[in-house]
Amino acid sequence: MPELVLLRHGQSQWNLENRFTGWVDVDLSAKGEEEARRSGELLKAAGLQFDQAHTSVLTRAIRTLWLALPASGQAWIPTEKAWRLNERHYGALTGLNKAETAERHGEQQVRIWRRSYDVPPPPLQPGGEYDFAADRRYRGVVPPATESLKTTLERVLPYWTSAIAPRLAAGQCVLIVAHGNSLRAIVKHLYGVPDAEIPGVEIPTGNPLSIELDAQLRPVRGRYLDEARASPLPELNPA
Amino acid sequence: MPELVLLRHGQSQWNLENRFTGWVDVDLSAKGEEEARRSGELLKAAGLQFDQAHTSVLTRAIRTLWLALPASGQAWIPTEKAWRLNERHYGALTGLNKAETAERHGEQQVRIWRRSYDVPPPPLQPGGEYDFAADRRYRGVVPPATESLKTTLERVLPYWTSAIAPRLAAGQCVLIVAHGNSLRAIVKHLYGVPDAEIPGVEIPTGNPLSIELDAQLRPVRGRYLDEARASPLPELNPA
Repeated sequence: MPELVLLRHGQSQWNLENRFTGWVDVDLSAKGEEEARRSGELLKAAGLQFDQAHTSVLTRAIRTLWLALPASGQAWIPTEKAWRLNERHYGALTGLNKAETAERHGEQQVRIWRRSYDVPPPPLQPGGEYDFAADRRYRGVVPPATESLKTTLERVLPYWTSAIAPRLAAGQCVLIVAHGNSLRAIVKHLYGVPDAEIPGVEIPTGNPLSIELDAQLRPVRGRYLDEARASPLPELNPA
Repeated sequence: MPELVLLRHGQSQWNLENRFTGWVDVDLSAKGEEEARRSGELLKAAGLQFDQAHTSVLTRAIRTLWLALPASGQAWIPTEKAWRLNERHYGALTGLNKAETAERHGEQQVRIWRRSYDVPPPPLQPGGEYDFAADRRYRGVVPPATESLKTTLERVLPYWTSAIAPRLAAGQCVLIVAHGNSLRAIVKHLYGVPDAEIPGVEIPTGNPLSIELDAQLRPVRGRYLDEARASPLPELNPA
């Protein structure tokens, strides 16, 4: 039976400072490292044996995987890193403190950018500190200038379809360590969550979400490994 | 111009206890972790920009890579893990303290097993603690019962030829983080070191060996990044 485990990286330096991070390559905080190790212990206690792992090209997700895997006794699992699993790109908000942003644009507008499905923030101006067009890790890719949750999902899905779904369809057990919005995109796709509801689905950090799937890759049973910190799971809506 | 960097993992728990380790999955000691971080700083100071990294399926090499890459600012580099880069399998000596082994088999015999090119120790008996036939990470592989440096080289070379040499031939910069004997095998192949001399070639731990290659993948220039702890490099013998 295919099994998928979704893990959201723990606290980063910028989560601490409450800044819009997106594609900026900020590292984990000491608390985030501890969350990652604890996640690995949860994976081990659940007896999960992975065939493959996937993560983004951002250090905070990669290092969460690298702390969780050895803690679960599975450092050797084959791993792929893909930019398509990156966090949502926050456009011109990148690097701003959330209070500063509210001051500049109004709280109502910030809420729309954060909590709507398809409204992207203003685009990032090219050439600045947070323009990743020249970053070696995105060679052959045109990084977005801004993203909504909808456009995030649109660039996550091709990777899901080509690199992850075939493994699951072969009955494998797959771990994905990624970000709030790239994981939301996968949950929306799997559970068929309506556009209006998906921004309200919260995936807690450092709490592996294990989802058993049927042969058509529809969720049969989902559970957070740390039940005390579980979020409600979405209802399953047939596609 | 192709560039290859070889890095031997730092001190492990069993190096500390002076035990034959081989394929046993022993983790790094605190000193080994520090060596790995320091290696990453040396890679960064040298301005090395990798296209790909390769390591074994043993935690002490994997974690050396995972500590060195972020310290060099390149956590995102695509990485492959391959059992063919594992340490030499020490057969029935696995797990024994080196003093105990000398007592049991004689110092002269132990020296032959450690320092000859083609004499393997007695085979590991099946079914014991160090029999890895049932280990999930070796699915589809028949683990050796013992290895000489020669048979180690014979199983490293197919991976070199299929997974590493084509990247270098394409002009890429490749990092290999592995073990004393799997790295010796690669150095023997690259430099054409005679059988009788290769057991005497020592690659220090935690000191990246950077080798520039020509289009035929012959070494043009080799240097250890920490010059103060460099070992002599072998002479180049045309194949």
